Formats: sequence, C-alpha cells, structure tokens
Amino acid sequence: MSAAPSGPDAPEPDAPEPDLTDPSLGEDFDPRDDAALARFLDAAGLEGPPEAFRARLARHAAAPRGRPDGAWLEILAPGCPADTAATLTRLRDRLAPAPPAPDPTRLDALRAVLGTRGLDGFIVPRADEHQGEFMPAAAERLAWLTGFTGSAGTAVVLADRAALFVDGRYTLQAGEQVDAERWEIAHLIRTPPPAWLAEALSAGRRIGYDPRLHSVAAVRRLRAAVEKAGAEAVPVEPNPIDDLWLDRPAMPLSPAVPHPVERAGEAADSKRARLAETLAAEGVDAAVLTSPESVAWLLNLRGGDVPNTPLAIADAILSADGSVDLYIDPEKLTGEARAHLGNRVSVHPPERFEQGLDDLGAGAKRVRIDPAAATEWVRARLERAGAVPMEGADPCVLPRARKNAVEIEGARAAHGRDGAALTRFLRWIDETAPAGGVTELSAVERLESLRAAGDFYRGPSFDAISGAGPDGAIVHYRVTPETDRPITAGMLYLVDSGGQYLDGTTDVTRTVAIGEPDAEMRRAFTLVLRGHIALADARFPPGTTGAQLDVLARRALWAHGLDYDHGTGHGVGSYLGVHEGPQRIASTGTPALEPGMIVSIEPGYYRTGHWGIRIENLAVVAAVPEDAPGMDGAERAMLGFEALTLAPIDRRLVDRDLLTADESAWLDAYHARVRAALADRLDDEDRAWLEAATAPL
Amino acid sequence: MSAAPSGPDAPEPDAPEPDLTDPSLGEDFDPRDDAALARFLDAAGLEGPPEAFRARLARHAAAPRGRPDGAWLEILAPGCPADTAATLTRLRDRLAPAPPAPDPTRLDALRAVLGTRGLDGFIVPRADEHQGEFMPAAAERLAWLTGFTGSAGTAVVLADRAALFVDGRYTLQAGEQVDAERWEIAHLIRTPPPAWLAEALSAGRRIGYDPRLHSVAAVRRLRAAVEKAGAEAVPVEPNPIDDLWLDRPAMPLSPAVPHPVERAGEAADSKRARLAETLAAEGVDAAVLTSPESVAWLLNLRGGDVPNTPLAIADAILSADGSVDLYIDPEKLTGEARAHLGNRVSVHPPERFEQGLDDLGAGAKRVRIDPAAATEWVRARLERAGAVPMEGADPCVLPRARKNAVEIEGARAAHGRDGAALTRFLRWIDETAPAGGVTELSAVERLESLRAAGDFYRGPSFDAISGAGPDGAIVHYRVTPETDRPITAGMLYLVDSGGQYLDGTTDVTRTVAIGEPDAEMRRAFTLVLRGHIALADARFPPGTTGAQLDVLARRALWAHGLDYDHGTGHGVGSYLGVHEGPQRIASTGTPALEPGMIVSIEPGYYRTGHWGIRIENLAVVAAVPEDAPGMDGAERAMLGFEALTLAPIDRRLVDRDLLTADESAWLDAYHARVRAALADRLDDEDRAWLEAATAPL
Repeated sequence: MSAAPSGPDAPEPDAPEPDLTDPSLGEDFDPRDDAALARFLDAAGLEGPPEAFRARLARHAAAPRGRPDGAWLEILAPGCPADTAATLTRLRDRLAPAPPAPDPTRLDALRAVLGTRGLDGFIVPRADEHQGEFMPAAAERLAWLTGFTGSAGTAVVLADRAALFVDGRYTLQAGEQVDAERWEIAHLIRTPPPAWLAEALSAGRRIGYDPRLHSVAAVRRLRAAVEKAGAEAVPVEPNPIDDLWLDRPAMPLSPAVPHPVERAGEAADSKRARLAETLAAEGVDAAVLTSPESVAWLLNLRGGDVPNTPLAIADAILSADGSVDLYIDPEKLTGEARAHLGNRVSVHPPERFEQGLDDLGAGAKRVRIDPAAATEWVRARLERAGAVPMEGADPCVLPRARKNAVEIEGARAAHGRDGAALTRFLRWIDETAPAGGVTELSAVERLESLRAAGDFYRGPSFDAISGAGPDGAIVHYRVTPETDRPITAGMLYLVDSGGQYLDGTTDVTRTVAIGEPDAEMRRAFTLVLRGHIALADARFPPGTTGAQLDVLARRALWAHGLDYDHGTGHGVGSYLGVHEGPQRIASTGTPALEPGMIVSIEPGYYRTGHWGIRIENLAVVAAVPEDAPGMDGAERAMLGFEALTLAPIDRRLVDRDLLTADESAWLDAYHARVRAALADRLDDEDRAWLEAATAPL
Repeated sequence: MSAAPSGPDAPEPDAPEPDLTDPSLGEDFDPRDDAALARFLDAAGLEGPPEAFRARLARHAAAPRGRPDGAWLEILAPGCPADTAATLTRLRDRLAPAPPAPDPTRLDALRAVLGTRGLDGFIVPRADEHQGEFMPAAAERLAWLTGFTGSAGTAVVLADRAALFVDGRYTLQAGEQVDAERWEIAHLIRTPPPAWLAEALSAGRRIGYDPRLHSVAAVRRLRAAVEKAGAEAVPVEPNPIDDLWLDRPAMPLSPAVPHPVERAGEAADSKRARLAETLAAEGVDAAVLTSPESVAWLLNLRGGDVPNTPLAIADAILSADGSVDLYIDPEKLTGEARAHLGNRVSVHPPERFEQGLDDLGAGAKRVRIDPAAATEWVRARLERAGAVPMEGADPCVLPRARKNAVEIEGARAAHGRDGAALTRFLRWIDETAPAGGVTELSAVERLESLRAAGDFYRGPSFDAISGAGPDGAIVHYRVTPETDRPITAGMLYLVDSGGQYLDGTTDVTRTVAIGEPDAEMRRAFTLVLRGHIALADARFPPGTTGAQLDVLARRALWAHGLDYDHGTGHGVGSYLGVHEGPQRIASTGTPALEPGMIVSIEPGYYRTGHWGIRIENLAVVAAVPEDAPGMDGAERAMLGFEALTLAPIDRRLVDRDLLTADESAWLDAYHARVRAALADRLDDEDRAWLEAATAPL
C-alpha cells in the first residue's frame, strides 16, 4: 500500500480504521466486488449500500484530479483517517473512465437507430448542456462516435454520408483519428454544417438534432439552412447516442466551495442585488443562467467538475427580486458552501431544472435567455410552458468581465508567483537544454512542478503547448508521448501555459532560443515583438473595440508579407475560464474594451516545418493616468493596457536595429518591471540569471 | 451687352442673328415678356412657343453653371451664333431661382394642410428621389420649410412641436438660420428622428412621410420606432410641401454627354453584360437603379444637373439580358449621347418610370433593389404591381468602386494637373499672405482659377473649405462673405478642396503655416502627419477592411490624449462623386479594401478657437509588388496604398524629433515623388519654390 497523504491537507486520524488484516481489502481490492466493498464501508464507518457508494466513487472518478490532493474526500468521507483516504483514492482511480476506444460499428448502430426513429440524419456537436469550452467525459459523444478527440468539431451523419467538421488546427489530427472510409473531413469554418447540409439534403428529409446540445442561435442557423433545401430539422430526445453508449462515464462529482469575498472583491448578495436591479429595469422577471461560469461568478462558488477551469456544473435562475434557484447536485456542496450560499439561494437537484423552467412558464414570466449561451431546449421549454423568452446577453457576462480592484490585485499577485515559476523554468531550459536530455514533455512537467510549488496553485488553466522546432509552428500543438521531441541547441522553443490560482488565472507564452538563434529567427521574433509592443503600448478612447486595435499587432508582420492565422487576444477570467468573453482582440465582432477587462496580447508567426514564435502577456485595461508621460495637454480620457504577466522576453532573439527608440524603451521598461517584481521571489542564482536576461538592450 | 464667349468652345456663327435693333431685346429684355420672347425666338430662328421655351430656359437656369461655358446651349440652341448665345445666357441668368427666403408662416401653413389630411405630423428629410449627396434646388424642401441650408438634416413637424435634426457640424448654423421660437434643434445622430418620435408620439397618432424621399431601410427604422409608441407611420403622396411651395424651382436641365471609353476604361456594353451575368447567376430578373451615380457609371454618361458631381438625374432598369431602360429627360441627351447609348438602351421620359416598375410587376419579375439606396416608393410600387423585390446591394456599387487601369491612369494624370495648381497656390499663399491682404474667400478664388487654367477641368468636386486660424478648427467650415477672415502671419491655414476633371476627381487638404509656426502647432501637425504616414504606408492582406486600419491614423494622437471626430477616409469616384462608397476608412461598418479602390486618407486635429490641422491625400489600393522593399521572404500577397495626390506637405510644421527614421524617410520619398511628377508642369519660379518646399527633412 502506498503511503497515505500527509502534511496540512491530510485528514486527521479520528475515525476507526478499516480492518486491513482482511486480505480482500489489500492492493487488489476491487470496488466492483459488492461483498468486499460492504466490508470496507462497514470497517471504515462509511455509509452504504455498496452500489450507491460505488456510484458516487465513479462520479468522483469522472471528475478531474483536483488540488489539494484530498479535497474530494471532504464530500465523500470528511475527516476520514489517512489509511481510509488512501484506500478510497485507490478505489476511485480503479473506477476512472477509460477514453472511448474507436469502434467503427458505432456509426452503423447510430444509423440503425435513426432509421427506427424516422430520421434521415443526425448532428453530433462537441458540446453539452452548458455550451462551455471544457466538458465532462460523459459529454464526449463526438469522440465516442468518431474517435476524434479535438476540442472543437461536429459530426453530421446521413444515411449514405457522414462528415466530421473540424477547423484548420485539427485537420491533420482528424485524418489520423477517424476512419477515412466512413468519414469525410470538412472544414468547420469554411463549410459549416448548416451550409453543408443545405447542399447535401434533398427536399423532405428529416435531420435530427439534440436540442440540449445546440444554442438557440445555432438551431436558428441550422433550421434556416435545412429549410432552404426543403428539408426539416427535428429536435430529438433523448439523444440516440446515449442509448448506444453503454459504458458512458458517470457525471463528475467534486466539491463546490466558496470563492471568498476577499478574493472575489464583491459579495454574492451584492452581485445578485445589482443584477436583479438591471433585470427589473429592463422589465425582465428572471434570467436563466446555463453557463456554469456565470453561476460561479454570480454566487462566488468554485468547483472541480471539468478540467482546467474551477467550475461546478450547475444551472441557475436569477429572479428580479435578487433570489436565486440553483440547480446543482447537492452532494457537491460542502457545509461551508451551503452556509456561504445563504437563504436567498435555494438549492435544487439538477433534475428539477425542468420544473424550474415550467414554473416560470406557469407564471407567464418574462425570462431573459442568451441565444448564444442557452440551448434550444431551454428556450423551447420556456415557450411551451407559457413564459415569454426575452433574448439578450447573459447578464453576468459584462459585469464578470469588468474585474474589480480586488480581482485585479489578485491577478497581479498570481502573476508574480506565476512569473517567478516561469523564470525558474526559463533559466533551467536555458542552462540545461543545449546540452541535451530535455524534451517537450519533460519541460512541461518541470514547469508544472515549479508552478505547483507556489502558493494558491490549483492546476493548469489549459493543456500546455510545448513546441520545440517544427512543433512550435503548430499553433495548437499538444505534446503526447508519441510526438515528444527533444529540445536541442539551434532550435526555437515555444511554451504556452498557464495556471489557476485562488487569486487569479494566468496564461503566458514565451519563445526562447536554445543556444544561438540565426538571423531569420531574430528577424521574425523582432517583428512579432514589434506587434506585441504596438498593441501593449497603445492608448485608446473609451468605446474602442478590440477589432479596432487588432491591426496594431499585425502591422509590422504585414509590412513584410507575413501574418498569423489566429486572433490576437482573448479575455481571461478571475480564477475562472482562461478563455472568457465578451472582450477579445480580433479582426471582427468584439465589444468595447472597458477598464478592468483582462485580455491576452499574443501575436505570433509560424514558419511551417521549422519553428513557431508567439509572445503572449496578459494585460488589464486601465485608465491612462493624467500625469502619464505624453499626456500633458491631453484633451480626452484614454485607456491603455497594464501588463500583468511578468517574465523575461528573450533578448537574444531581439534585433535591436529593427526596433524604434520607443520600442526599445518599452522592452527595457517592461524588463525593469519584471526584475523589480520578481527579485524577492527568486533565489540568488535565479535572480542573477534574470538580471542578465532583462538587462537593457 | 457683354462680350460673347469666344475661343474653341464658342458656337460658330452659322444661324441668322436676332434683330438687335429691337430695343425690347436689349439689356432689359425680360424673358417673362411673352411678346418680346416670341419676337426674339422668331428672329433667332429658335422654336417656340414662348411659354415652353421659357420653361426650358428656367430648367437650364435651375442647373449649376457648367463648363465649358456654352455647353448647355448644345441642347437648347445647338450651333447658334455668339450674339444669340450671349442673349440666351442673359435670359437664363434672369430666371435663376433665388434661394428661398425664410418665412415663418410656412410651418403654420404645413400644419394646416396636415390637419386637412388627417395627419398628426410629417417628416421632411433633406433628400430627393435619388438619395444622393447633391440635389437640385427643387428638392430643397427642408430649406424652404425651416431656413436651414446645411447639407444634412431632417425636420419633424407635429401639431404642437417641431424639431430640426442636424449633426454636430451644423448645430451652430441651424441655431442661426431657424426660428428658435418655432423649432427645437435636436442631434441627428444621438437622437435621430425615429428615436425622438418614439418618445414624442402618443398612441394612435398618424405621422406622415413622403415615400419618395426615404430609403426602404429608413422607412423600416421609422415604422419600427413609431409603432413602438403605438402610433402609425403613413406614406403621403403628393408631398404636402409641394402644394405650398409656389415658386419652387424647375427641375434642372443640362446636357448629358458620353464619358468616352478612353476615359472610362470599359465600354458600357461590357459593363451591362457583366452585371447582367451576375444578376442572372443570382436568379434576379432585373435591377432597379435609382442612384444617378450608378446610371452614370453603367452607361458611361455624365451630366450637369447637380453641383460638384457630373450627374444627369435619371433612373434605370437593368435587365438580366443586358438591356437597359433609361428614364431621363430626353431633352438632356445630345445627339452624340443618343448614338453612344446604342440600341440596347431604351430612353423613356422620367414620368414613365412608374410604368416601368409596373411592367416588372406584371411580369412577376424578381427585382433587385438596394434598401439603402432605393426609396420606399419604389419598393412599394414594385410589390403592389406584383414584382418580387429581392433586396441586395446596388450591383453597380462594387464594380464602380474597383477602378480599372484606365481610370487609375486618368486619376494619376488629373492629380498631376491638380497638384501643379495647388503647388502654385501654396507658393502664392506662402509669399503673399504674411504681408496681409489675402482672405479665405480670395484664396479659394485664386485656387479655383489656378485649377481652371489646367486641362480637362470641369469645376470643383465640392465647396472648398478655406479656414484661417480658428475657422480651420471648424471641420466643415464654409466661408461666406460674412465670415471671410484675413489670412495673416502667425496663423495656420487649412484648405480642403478638389476638382472634377474629365479624367478624374480630386480632393486634397493641406495645412500651412503663415509665417513662423509655434511649437504647439508643430507638435500637433507632426502627430497628425504620423497618423497619415502610418496609414498611407500600411500593407495589409486582401480582405482587410477600412475599419481595421482606421486606428493607424489615430494612434499617434491617442498616445497624447487627442483625437478627431470624423472618419479617416472616404471613397472617391472617377469623374464622379467625391464621396463614393462602399469603401471607407472609419471605425465601423466598412467593406474590404480591394485593388483599384480610391480612398482619402485624412486624419486631423482641431484646437477649437485656435486652429485646425488636416493632411489629406487620395490614394489607390494596389497590390504590393513582390520586389518591393521588405517583401523578400514574404509568404502572403499584400495590398497597400499608392498616393495619388501630389502636393507638398509643409515641412516647417514638421518636428523631426517626433518622427521615427521610417517616417522621415516616407515624407522625403513622398516629396521626391511630388517634385519629380510636377517639375515639368511648373515654371521656373514655382519649381524653385517646390524644390525648397520638398527638400529632404
């Protein structure tokens, strides 16, 4: 038996220990063995019956491994002794769901089911009821059906054709993962499923979709396209895949805990009250919140149900009187969380959500739903029940995006710790990699362990991108043991990673030379850096959108016939999603940037087959002070960016001759800030390395 | 009697001369005297009766004075002798419509008419059936009703309230021109008439509008707003003002002439054929063209019915078989024009347009109309007649915007002549104004006469802006004898002007120091110049919009808390409108910039009460050559701007310390181009002045 966890997070031994003399409870203890499980529960003083306990264990097993290690036990076996904890951990891990093995017969099985239901086709998006970026394993229907495991895609199954739609970054992966004999690979952006269906369908056909998996807006687009072809889009419940997917993982179970006001900066009752006021002013009776990010922000609640983002899967209904009905598995709530929610938040199990919508209908309420966030199922249910759907933006989105002073201070602190960890890592890569022996995977593991050594760390904010040489040119490269490449002298190495800290979410990309860079690398890096600086240093009047500013990051590359095929920046949450809207920096469709919004600034350049370059900082939008340099004689208030990310930018890759004096001054000033902020967090050797790495150009 | 026109444009004396011994045909000859007019017509061998001839004369009088001087006589009395021409010119000028004198009783009279028609209000836009920027005097109903003569505005008359809506540039002027006791002044952009009406109207009210004066899209916005208030928007025909406006000017009559293929670059039959092909491919049977600019471009026809733009007022219907029905006063067409139009273009009088729409309806045709360009009257007429309105962009707009090689070559030539005239003017201002005696008006007259001395000049492309000192800070300042200000030492002088040439349309702004500029002027000018250069020098991939690039022109100002409250650039036609869409450079709503599009680049800065700065060049979008500097190693095709405007930018206002090396190099290179292009067009003294004015920084 492995050692039980110890240290401050280990539970105190104050409960009776199981009888470990019983050999069936040893290393081979199988939680599927009812009799053994019953004996264990009895010995450990835990409540049975074994079937129910195993089901709970399976749900814990379906959640990501959270931090601290034993946190999940707080809702399963609070206060259990170390040995019990160790056994429970082992049992949980034995129940962890395996990724679905590809099976080409599933497509045939699905077609057979569609036939019995009178359908000519069916759409399978990579999405769940909450329309978020990260999903539980039980929602991976697309992977189960097609074998494709990318983070975005949709399948369309017709009687004689089947297509998988992926975007440019996944074309290669899709080709490797799916059966080319059965699946066409189509481009998700250029020929999205509605457009493809408008061509592929003939009049009279009935194409099914699961209304719980598509947003209101998506179903509108789908219907319009399908009806153009004279065909019909039919909502289908339950999802036919769920009948076929016999070993579908359980829904995840992990603790939901308060996000204290000391970190959130605003108490949940204050948030509820001011949002309720807005709803009332707009003549709306209630808002349905189907995005767990919105629920997390509104109620100052964090969980662990999905990877990389501290979310508890939940829905909520916010009434214009400021009360909330929260639909969440009550087992997730610690006692502390229940006390935190207070008596204006009524907790219901998720299966009551339907009734909650029906109740709104019975009262003929005017109900705000966000057509881009809520599913068609919610809209249709409300309408059928008699409610008046009032479409508009999720009322949490903008208030959440405008970080308050406490959240911004938290972000600065988190970025200090994150920057120190990254600096240690960059020194290690700098000193170790040229000699050989470091690979993309080992580098990521090193970086993760350096982050984990700091305070308040709760895990990565996304799967790190660690690309050496040609792998760096793959914009969304994800290293696997199969692709793991040694990081060796003469390469560029790109590492894009981030952390979830209790006080903030980070996301940073650095590109470094391993040994001596060549002139081409330096020229390209300097062009990317010029774009980064032009945007980071911009001032702009209130009302300016990210779309207006995007060109600043591209101009230097464009001048040389170069560009990058991704947005320039995304919004970031506060100990929440690393991709959080509505603010963005991209060529179209972005709202005004407002003070307190956090965005990434991440221009890049990718030379296919050779190397990739990206320089990413997070920054917070802030008013330019009246006494800032250059603002004497100013007539209008301006906004600007304050860099949050604190880590050196590789000076060896900067061709100073290509920078203007102002650009050089920006880099020197940024490096001076990095030095000053990190000095006290580093040991002498790391600090000495940083001094050299951030010396003026 | 004044001297008759002579020179190449004077008609040859090959017709019998009138009997000028008849004293009633002398200086005091009144064209309203039927008997005298009959005697004159008889003596001159012109066709009567006098009433009809006078009506034609009045219509000529309602058209702008075109160039060359006698061109209008080509359709009234072709080949008449010089003396007859002189008399006809005098008669015409006596019939010129006077601007409507303000009369406060008109508002009461209108209200009385509304009452008899059962209306609670009426909307009076500054617009005509063709929705263009420049209108004939007969369409100035807004000026007649309110006294306001600005180029944009709308009046809303209710029983107890009346409001005039103008934008920021006209607030002052409106306050001076309209009766404040009767009219509220409202902001056209912040509280547009639909929003104002939604507040002002109570349920059940009926607000009238003339469907011939509002676009389809405008009526939709109006209806939505009015219906929100429970009121009704009612189309009203005929316009009640037309019953009250007894001395309403005649509709203008002026020659419509061919725009030869040597200047247009593409024959009209080729344009008709390729547009027809597009329509057919889109399943559209015909397109209704209500914009005279579209008719002018499609048929390679130019006229003189409105100020500043060489337009013949006309509508057209383009069929998917490539034939055109042209609705135009046939008297406008010279024999040459008729021959030019050919047998695939059927000419009908304007009053047959209604029948043309009805015919489309009788055939149940699918008819393209542009909801932003066509009036509601056209849409409703088509629908009532049984046609299927297919809304979409006017099919001429994009092809017209993409100038062909011949048009671009013409633009370059026109800009050479224009730049030479402007250079002579700038030297004159530079040498004359500091000593005193030059005013805003006399400067504009001088500039106009210098332009007129060049080849192919056909008049200004808009009313020049000539702003000395504080007048330069008024963005759309229009100098009048009342506001005429001396241009004196120590001032900045801003002059924004342009010309219509047979081979191109120009529009240029220069700001010059009169005597020695101070440091503040130089700093502000240099910031504006940096913005100009950043945009003019930008490279960008195909698909990039003006909205994406706009920030480049503002960034330097924003860095110092400064900005300007107008767009950065507008499209320009080819011997057509000086404001021509769809391309623009502004913060929102602009299409992709395509090769051949001509745009202005005109950032500015205005210090109210002191001075204004604007630096405007026209530029044509063009592919960046593969061998252009910096494009070695380019991976993507890029577009850029080629400056068309050729005139010095005042070096005395440039603070070189504020420019980067690249920016200085841009200005020096631009000035070298100006010198090279203009040298042969200038005399020795002007050339010497230009050499100094364009010397490297």
